[in-house]
Amino acid sequence: MSSTYGEKLKLSIFGQSHGPAIGMTLDGIPAGLPVDFEALNAFMARRAPGQGSFATSRKEADQPEFLSGLVDSFTCGAPLSAIIRNTNTRSGDYSNLKDCPRPGHADLPAQIKYKGFQDVAGGGHFSGRLTAPLCIAGGLCKQWLGKKGIHIGAHISSVAGITDKLFDPVSPDLAAVQDGFPVIDLSAGKKMLAEIEKAKADSDSVGGTIECAITGLPAGLGEPMFGGLESKLAQIIYGVPAVKGLAFGSGFAGSELRGSENNDPYTITDNKITTITNNAGGILGGITTGMPLIFKVAIKPTPSISRLQQSVSLDRMEQQELSVQGRHDPCIVPRAVPVIEAATAIAIFDICLLDGKF
Amino acid sequence: MSSTYGEKLKLSIFGQSHGPAIGMTLDGIPAGLPVDFEALNAFMARRAPGQGSFATSRKEADQPEFLSGLVDSFTCGAPLSAIIRNTNTRSGDYSNLKDCPRPGHADLPAQIKYKGFQDVAGGGHFSGRLTAPLCIAGGLCKQWLGKKGIHIGAHISSVAGITDKLFDPVSPDLAAVQDGFPVIDLSAGKKMLAEIEKAKADSDSVGGTIECAITGLPAGLGEPMFGGLESKLAQIIYGVPAVKGLAFGSGFAGSELRGSENNDPYTITDNKITTITNNAGGILGGITTGMPLIFKVAIKPTPSISRLQQSVSLDRMEQQELSVQGRHDPCIVPRAVPVIEAATAIAIFDICLLDGKF
Amino acid sequence: MSSTYGEKLKLSIFGQSHGPAIGMTLDGIPAGLPVDFEALNAFMARRAPGQGSFATSRKEADQPEFLSGLVDSFTCGAPLSAIIRNTNTRSGDYSNLKDCPRPGHADLPAQIKYKGFQDVAGGGHFSGRLTAPLCIAGGLCKQWLGKKGIHIGAHISSVAGITDKLFDPVSPDLAAVQDGFPVIDLSAGKKMLAEIEKAKADSDSVGGTIECAITGLPAGLGEPMFGGLESKLAQIIYGVPAVKGLAFGSGFAGSELRGSENNDPYTITDNKITTITNNAGGILGGITTGMPLIFKVAIKPTPSISRLQQSVSLDRMEQQELSVQGRHDPCIVPRAVPVIEAATAIAIFDICLLDGKF
Amino acid sequence: MSSTYGEKLKLSIFGQSHGPAIGMTLDGIPAGLPVDFEALNAFMARRAPGQGSFATSRKEADQPEFLSGLVDSFTCGAPLSAIIRNTNTRSGDYSNLKDCPRPGHADLPAQIKYKGFQDVAGGGHFSGRLTAPLCIAGGLCKQWLGKKGIHIGAHISSVAGITDKLFDPVSPDLAAVQDGFPVIDLSAGKKMLAEIEKAKADSDSVGGTIECAITGLPAGLGEPMFGGLESKLAQIIYGVPAVKGLAFGSGFAGSELRGSENNDPYTITDNKITTITNNAGGILGGITTGMPLIFKVAIKPTPSISRLQQSVSLDRMEQQELSVQGRHDPCIVPRAVPVIEAATAIAIFDICLLDGKF
Repeated sequence: MSSTYGEKLKLSIFGQSHGPAIGMTLDGIPAGLPVDFEALNAFMARRAPGQGSFATSRKEADQPEFLSGLVDSFTCGAPLSAIIRNTNTRSGDYSNLKDCPRPGHADLPAQIKYKGFQDVAGGGHFSGRLTAPLCIAGGLCKQWLGKKGIHIGAHISSVAGITDKLFDPVSPDLAAVQDGFPVIDLSAGKKMLAEIEKAKADSDSVGGTIECAITGLPAGLGEPMFGGLESKLAQIIYGVPAVKGLAFGSGFAGSELRGSENNDPYTITDNKITTITNNAGGILGGITTGMPLIFKVAIKPTPSISRLQQSVSLDRMEQQELSVQGRHDPCIVPRAVPVIEAATAIAIFDICLLDGKF
Repeated sequence: MSSTYGEKLKLSIFGQSHGPAIGMTLDGIPAGLPVDFEALNAFMARRAPGQGSFATSRKEADQPEFLSGLVDSFTCGAPLSAIIRNTNTRSGDYSNLKDCPRPGHADLPAQIKYKGFQDVAGGGHFSGRLTAPLCIAGGLCKQWLGKKGIHIGAHISSVAGITDKLFDPVSPDLAAVQDGFPVIDLSAGKKMLAEIEKAKADSDSVGGTIECAITGLPAGLGEPMFGGLESKLAQIIYGVPAVKGLAFGSGFAGSELRGSENNDPYTITDNKITTITNNAGGILGGITTGMPLIFKVAIKPTPSISRLQQSVSLDRMEQQELSVQGRHDPCIVPRAVPVIEAATAIAIFDICLLDGKF
Repeated sequence: MSSTYGEKLKLSIFGQSHGPAIGMTLDGIPAGLPVDFEALNAFMARRAPGQGSFATSRKEADQPEFLSGLVDSFTCGAPLSAIIRNTNTRSGDYSNLKDCPRPGHADLPAQIKYKGFQDVAGGGHFSGRLTAPLCIAGGLCKQWLGKKGIHIGAHISSVAGITDKLFDPVSPDLAAVQDGFPVIDLSAGKKMLAEIEKAKADSDSVGGTIECAITGLPAGLGEPMFGGLESKLAQIIYGVPAVKGLAFGSGFAGSELRGSENNDPYTITDNKITTITNNAGGILGGITTGMPLIFKVAIKPTPSISRLQQSVSLDRMEQQELSVQGRHDPCIVPRAVPVIEAATAIAIFDICLLDGKF
Repeated sequence: MSSTYGEKLKLSIFGQSHGPAIGMTLDGIPAGLPVDFEALNAFMARRAPGQGSFATSRKEADQPEFLSGLVDSFTCGAPLSAIIRNTNTRSGDYSNLKDCPRPGHADLPAQIKYKGFQDVAGGGHFSGRLTAPLCIAGGLCKQWLGKKGIHIGAHISSVAGITDKLFDPVSPDLAAVQDGFPVIDLSAGKKMLAEIEKAKADSDSVGGTIECAITGLPAGLGEPMFGGLESKLAQIIYGVPAVKGLAFGSGFAGSELRGSENNDPYTITDNKITTITNNAGGILGGITTGMPLIFKVAIKPTPSISRLQQSVSLDRMEQQELSVQGRHDPCIVPRAVPVIEAATAIAIFDICLLDGKF
């Protein structure tokens, strides 16, 4: 429940935005897996703030400190735990949130659920900052999957309605995603950046979509019904803040096709059975087909905007205007790309563990 | 895993399409809840085949037989179990599926996963027929939620690209959905039926989308991160065969809006805090806002079509054409409407149990 | 929770003593495992009533009907479900239990928990009859473990203080257990039977202990802390009615030894490391040592006795005498022997699944 | 699995004896519960080493540092996490354990399970030191249960066969347990201490038993079968290192009684139904009876002894003598008393959460 995930793997995430530290425990990892710290730091850096005009200027020291689970850079079978100290703690920026909830944030639902005891500073446990420990866990799982030939890559598929080129669903080229601003088509990326700049200038924000592909998955992974890969992935991906939609393969567009168009015909290439198209997104009946697994995620526009918004004073029970102060991403989509990869890696690693693949 | 769902509630679904029986066990239900069998049968009838031109002409006796969990029509606290006998068992219609997998079906992934031991008859455990026990469980949960003022309603929001009117996200009128063919706008429904007829005449099929709304949910239900309502609902809804997309509130369309447009401004009506819009679909940070919970589901076109399709012979490892025989729904969307309601009711009931609401 | 068990395996048990049927669903079983129905029936027969003076004269038709999960006597990967019809349903024998709870039974706790809605007939879901579906599940797991060289055997280690010979903890001879009345030492068995007869003549009952051994387990199974084998076994064994104690290896007696006596010294035999003694009962740190796994279970005397006992009338809130009518086992221990084997087999099978052994 | 526990509560424990830190995350705690740090430290001190002749002279700084879950000493609804830094890290004392496993320890099973990648220093994740984070979690749960009138107390019921007075099962006086060396009868305590001294002088160790009682539990808590209180408690208590036996109420001794002796007769006192005896230990059918919950735990003698023991050299595959060096408790039972209380508190708190009691 809540901030735990997994069946054979057990991920537990803790921390609040302005508390002493955030962190995670990953239980159930086999012993003997190597950890490449440099690769992990590079992965974490993709999520880190302060990278460009699209991101907040806040500085976060996202270097994880490992507390357990490793001996000489190899997993030892014990639960792996790591923390990141919060340097920016208990700031007074958020003091009025208990009275005046931010539209689009969990402030008011949390206040009701936790009867006023919730940590409001920086959004508390609801903060996007909690995706940092998710990236520690997912960054490691991604490394380990990579060693088995299972690769995960994502890119911004749209921002503010401007679309990137999509992956070829039959044979996605994960390496085509650019460093820095993660798009395939740089010219689309430029237009997106312009939209982000415009929103920022308007004290506003924009959202977008992310496309993710996994290659190298064998056929036959996953379980029927509620243990299907779509269910497993959806549970963790909807745990990423700001995600409001998720669709596999042809998804919503596929619902407008005919069966004869949406079904993926089988063929034989090099004595291997594949499908000519991949509208199924690599999953049928919850189980991998052996084709690339492909899905798209909808990310809502950052709710924190400095524009005036209508809120209410809970104390006085009257209408009140609000301008959200602080440094916020005018578009969270670029930084969400590695987070989606991380969440995906965790789910796929758990599926692989359940299937005896590690 | 697999065919079980829930945290405090434990649902277990079993059966294959042509095996002796299908059924379900629902563990964790409080004692003393009444069962209205007539209402349950009416609910089951909405899913039953043979209702019109859009559905298969197969007859299924979907009357559940309760084996445990009840005393005099009240739950007794023991696991509730019910089965439906399959009358159409072990038919020979599907004998060649082990050699020639149907495109768009789980035949080949299942064959790989289960090493050839899977039950191929009628799709086995992957059959849409398994949604009947899901409807028993969900039909009951829906009754019990109704008694607490929590109501669930769904309708066809599109078929083959033809769209129905949508629910008002702030105040959805569940009663506006028509009996029979579940749309709000009858004229749109007629056009959908025409499209379904056309597909049928072409030995083809069409897909569509379903919109679902839940009213009467208190604010503060759900957990942060992976225990959020989106995660809980997604896990069960992706367990429904043919679902390939799911989006909450403004969903994918919302990703094209600006924050100032997508955020729902707070207001006070009758001394109660509500939001003027409901782009959040009733969920922020995984937790109910007190506004109606609204989401949309993408259903792929029925993969079983009698049109010739490209498949392969696994024995001879060569290309082979296939025409799927048998009686199949040219459009599964209408019958999927109560199934989505059922899945939703189960997830919401579990959330309510976890929250001490029953 | 409640009547479900397992991590990768998901067992769900349902039914009440006098309801329409009892049964179980076993989800998560690999495909391709053969079912030997004859062996299963022989196993079920060991639990069945009506076998001798020590058991009730009730007749139960314990023949399981399989509803799902099998194709031609092999598991097909879908949840395996089986039921046993209750022939003796809704008898009036138990009508006064709602007013006058039986000492030593769950009548009163259940009445409080379920607010009077519980099924009182025959003890409802608390009946020992629910061990029949446990034996279906466990009987199958035992077969499958046997094929991997993992064997489970139990015997009555004491009745009313009269003790049987114990297994050699280093090299238990499971075949030494007698058919019929399951003891190793027939002369001890005769004395036990005499005690049971005496208790019966006195309208009373006796309890006892069961010793269980598992051979053929590889070293390294199980997880640390709460996932240890003792924890896994304890959870299911305490789910067997009437179990009130459980101890592994030297157990309570070992707590009186010194470390130098209780530690098992390592030795090398045939180039294999073993221990000279087995006070650990085959488990250290929750993990198998490769030595036989051995434990003992305490079974309380059957609470149903026709002797007059002190109870109360709940309606009148006054003292009331009670004589429990009906046909009851004066000693449940012999019939509990296969039940303990079944519970053990389920736990071990789940551990093996988690470890990729199937 | 492994180092996680709980249904509505989710406890995750991490750390190795000589790693950077040990700690725990407790997810699922309601918001608004106060934390009394002084009481927690006093509770932790009862487990801390260096308290007397019976304990190791090691010094451990067991002061927990809270990383998340609290605002101003109240729980905020987010996962509560705390760590304890290890000051004694990576010592060379244990370097030869990979070659020569200690009898009675998990060294060899762990080596096999983790293929040589396990952390051997100080027993790694299998160390008794991991009971410190268990005591953080349990110490807090105990505080919160106390505020609802549910009290937990334990004492040494025996050491080396010397027995303490037991609790009155119908009305246990938790306050009768002495501070310091936790027995009821000081003269028995003195004899136990003498036995411990003797064992120490002999470079040996002794074991014992612990009796635990919980008062104030309402009737009706717990679930049938595998969700019963015995199962819930057993799972966590067997997660405590060195526990090899567990028995509820009359336990193993009760198995020698007749039903007429072991059944607890009902009576009415002050218009409340109670039982005259409490052989059931407060649990029938897995559900609380409203009487005190009572159980006994067997703790094996400390396996670490400096006496020469027979082990083997894994490298050379030949017999080798071993004397375990380092500072070890000649009797772990006194320090295990608060650990058993902590484990119990966690299980009972989870049961209470599931039942909507918080």
